[in-house]
Amino acid sequence: MNALRERIWTILEPATEGDTLSKWCDVFLITLILTNVFAAVIETVEWIANRWGWALSLFEHFSVSIFAVEYLLRLWSCRANPQYDSLIWGRVRFAMTPLALIDLFAILPAFLPASHIDLRMLRLLRLFRLLRSIKLARYTAAVDIFVAVFREKKEEIVVAFCVMFLLVLFSAAIVYYVENPAQPDKFPDIPTAMWWAVITLATVGYGDVYPVTGPGRFVTGIVALLGIGMFALPAGILGAGFTEEIQRRRRKKTPSRCPHCGQALIDF
Amino acid sequence: MNALRERIWTILEPATEGDTLSKWCDVFLITLILTNVFAAVIETVEWIANRWGWALSLFEHFSVSIFAVEYLLRLWSCRANPQYDSLIWGRVRFAMTPLALIDLFAILPAFLPASHIDLRMLRLLRLFRLLRSIKLARYTAAVDIFVAVFREKKEEIVVAFCVMFLLVLFSAAIVYYVENPAQPDKFPDIPTAMWWAVITLATVGYGDVYPVTGPGRFVTGIVALLGIGMFALPAGILGAGFTEEIQRRRRKKTPSRCPHCGQALIDF
Amino acid sequence: MNALRERIWTILEPATEGDTLSKWCDVFLITLILTNVFAAVIETVEWIANRWGWALSLFEHFSVSIFAVEYLLRLWSCRANPQYDSLIWGRVRFAMTPLALIDLFAILPAFLPASHIDLRMLRLLRLFRLLRSIKLARYTAAVDIFVAVFREKKEEIVVAFCVMFLLVLFSAAIVYYVENPAQPDKFPDIPTAMWWAVITLATVGYGDVYPVTGPGRFVTGIVALLGIGMFALPAGILGAGFTEEIQRRRRKKTPSRCPHCGQALIDF
Amino acid sequence: MNALRERIWTILEPATEGDTLSKWCDVFLITLILTNVFAAVIETVEWIANRWGWALSLFEHFSVSIFAVEYLLRLWSCRANPQYDSLIWGRVRFAMTPLALIDLFAILPAFLPASHIDLRMLRLLRLFRLLRSIKLARYTAAVDIFVAVFREKKEEIVVAFCVMFLLVLFSAAIVYYVENPAQPDKFPDIPTAMWWAVITLATVGYGDVYPVTGPGRFVTGIVALLGIGMFALPAGILGAGFTEEIQRRRRKKTPSRCPHCGQALIDF
Repeated sequence: MNALRERIWTILEPATEGDTLSKWCDVFLITLILTNVFAAVIETVEWIANRWGWALSLFEHFSVSIFAVEYLLRLWSCRANPQYDSLIWGRVRFAMTPLALIDLFAILPAFLPASHIDLRMLRLLRLFRLLRSIKLARYTAAVDIFVAVFREKKEEIVVAFCVMFLLVLFSAAIVYYVENPAQPDKFPDIPTAMWWAVITLATVGYGDVYPVTGPGRFVTGIVALLGIGMFALPAGILGAGFTEEIQRRRRKKTPSRCPHCGQALIDF
Repeated sequence: MNALRERIWTILEPATEGDTLSKWCDVFLITLILTNVFAAVIETVEWIANRWGWALSLFEHFSVSIFAVEYLLRLWSCRANPQYDSLIWGRVRFAMTPLALIDLFAILPAFLPASHIDLRMLRLLRLFRLLRSIKLARYTAAVDIFVAVFREKKEEIVVAFCVMFLLVLFSAAIVYYVENPAQPDKFPDIPTAMWWAVITLATVGYGDVYPVTGPGRFVTGIVALLGIGMFALPAGILGAGFTEEIQRRRRKKTPSRCPHCGQALIDF
Repeated sequence: MNALRERIWTILEPATEGDTLSKWCDVFLITLILTNVFAAVIETVEWIANRWGWALSLFEHFSVSIFAVEYLLRLWSCRANPQYDSLIWGRVRFAMTPLALIDLFAILPAFLPASHIDLRMLRLLRLFRLLRSIKLARYTAAVDIFVAVFREKKEEIVVAFCVMFLLVLFSAAIVYYVENPAQPDKFPDIPTAMWWAVITLATVGYGDVYPVTGPGRFVTGIVALLGIGMFALPAGILGAGFTEEIQRRRRKKTPSRCPHCGQALIDF
Repeated sequence: MNALRERIWTILEPATEGDTLSKWCDVFLITLILTNVFAAVIETVEWIANRWGWALSLFEHFSVSIFAVEYLLRLWSCRANPQYDSLIWGRVRFAMTPLALIDLFAILPAFLPASHIDLRMLRLLRLFRLLRSIKLARYTAAVDIFVAVFREKKEEIVVAFCVMFLLVLFSAAIVYYVENPAQPDKFPDIPTAMWWAVITLATVGYGDVYPVTGPGRFVTGIVALLGIGMFALPAGILGAGFTEEIQRRRRKKTPSRCPHCGQALIDF
């Protein structure tokens, strides 16, 4: 029994080198997840829903069954991991890990009674299926690396967002003040002006709202020149942190050495 | 008396570790500032002003009273700081510090007689309330860090802005020359062409003004390719300076050491 | 025979210092390639095709002849390179190298019988001529350097694209959910919302699709702020890798030395 | 005579520390240049030209006189610089330096007989006055630094532009092929599609031309994701080079030292 549990656990977890069965299981699950996300996306296209709705629905039932079995097997076999090795509490703790919660949320909506749900709610439940894409996090280091980078650069990012918030607030207020009399329908209030400010400072520039008066354009020009620097800050910070993080992981394999004692410096 | 003054001063200043009362005071003031900014923003929305105007106005009176008391208390207790320790001149010097001036400007408009002010002026006075958001600077290192970065990178930024100015000027002039005959309403003069140049070079691209002739598009293409490099410069410069500054602050507290021999690793 | 073959090979390959004939051959081929690409581009302009079609067609025949001769000469003389030195297999292996395949594809369409091809197919075949621009790769290090950078930074780029994919997916799903009831024609399904998400997150912002409801705008604002960081990541990663790669190549030739004592300064 | 020539030369050149007269002369000339550029810009605004044309024209005559005197004085006194110290050839060589040529071009148009010039030519001549802004280069290190950075990073920039050119070419060709049947008026030929490609890849996104078919949007999405990295490369390269250059200039004052012999490493 214990051996079986352990085997199932290793099969479900990302494969280690040489474990062919586990590897095929991973490939199967990854394919299923990606196909599922693809199905959830195209299902919203009307003519596809009309014509292939029955196939997508069938595929959905099939997937949910697999994911449910996967979830139950994980829950049962998690005791193979010493961290969660206790009959009830270990499993509860396992069920509370982010990845296990995602696994649960990704199948739960399928078991809700569809009778007394209105259309809008139904659409929301369908979108919940997209959460399955996060199940991929188990098989890639991407999310891991990002969490590490965000933790490392927390301080910088908070500061950058404070400055960006002030920038949005003030440029919105000034342009609202200047443009409101000229375009009361485009700049009716500050929240709308803040929409304009974010879209401008992020250099998206849809063109649905823009200043037309001389002073408004002058302020926008200044704000654009100053703001771009500010709005590109998080990109720069994250980019740098990202490169550092990956180099740090790489260096763990071939560490650099202290110039004084010659010993390996593992993580700096 | 002196002890009370000192206590009030420490309570009003950002809390040091362990000073619970001061910490709660900070939390209260930060919340009040944020709520105020939020109120000033949503007050400009017509239906909210119509429906909840009375509540917002009440809240405004309440806030101004608190901020006025805070300002007076700061002014009175500032002598606790040895820098400003003199009956009149110390206080005047304190009142002239940027943060104290902001505190003053944030409450002053509320005490102006509203009788002989026209609508436009009134709206401006209301926007002055947004200055209260700068009061947050006292509680975060964000503004501090930015001032330090700007001072450090002053030279680079001035050079970058000079080049950006020339770039805007020349691309505006060329496109004005090429496009004016084809679109006299879109490119009537160089100032308007400069608006186009800034919005294009900053890659915002609203789409309200753009070239339509072959030569105009060709020049725009070249300008876009060259210009993006120039306009991203301040972002790169600030981003680098920003990361350096935060790392410098962090390193001051904990210089990194070789984990094996314990010697400090050269600051680099 | 062998000497002639070797001479032709060296003439066709990028010239080494001092080989005047080879250099002129390079200049001629580069000019021919660029002129060809230019011709293929302007041929699609209707009035040029009507008026100068005969000249462009003549030039096309001339170019194809030259390129065909070049291809055959390369195929014949490739034995001069020890790597491909065997009558049949060496040449087959040479013909399978990316650059030789490009050479082939760039002339092949011209030899297809034009009789039973529909208009759309014909246009595609014409565009194939643009592949000739890749022949330039032989004469510049640009593509080489890019391949090296992509190989070096493979890992980072894959991670960045995973995160970008998730970001596009979720922002599209949320905005679709929020905006679909308000603008069923602009956000009819998730694939369209993904189009919006890519164009917004890449800060292109055409302005053909954008949210108009309060919640939609709020989500877009958040997404824009977060997303720009993510979407600028590949740029940062590639930019850094690019600079590193070029410096590495430069350093190989001339390691920097202390100008006073002449010792090499550590590679950093 | 020689002493006077030398004095005039030092007055006209950017002031050294302590030379008050030279400094005031610099300030005067810089102010005059900026005012001139400002005048040339606002002169194109119709109502200003109508109302203040006489004043602007007067100011133009005044400026041209000053600049002409400045040019002649420079030409006369340039012999004070040993580089140009010969009666005729030294002066000719001085007159051929970029800054002297700019000085000349900035005044020349004013001396052209205005009689037989058509309107378009006249407008061009007026724009020539903007060249005066380049005279500022004498007083700032900005242009110097940029020339140095471009020289240093020449190779990287050429490679980046090659890749950008290929990217524009191929994305234009593909989207032209896909979108032309659906929007023959928006994508009539490849040159227009290249306009679209540049504006999209530079993330300007005016919104005058964009794909509407599924495949066209898919290709655009891919191109946007890949292309942004490429198009941000010059920005990254220039930004890095720019920071390096300024640090190099700063380091010249406080140079770092060779770890082997302890001597100063002046420029690396």
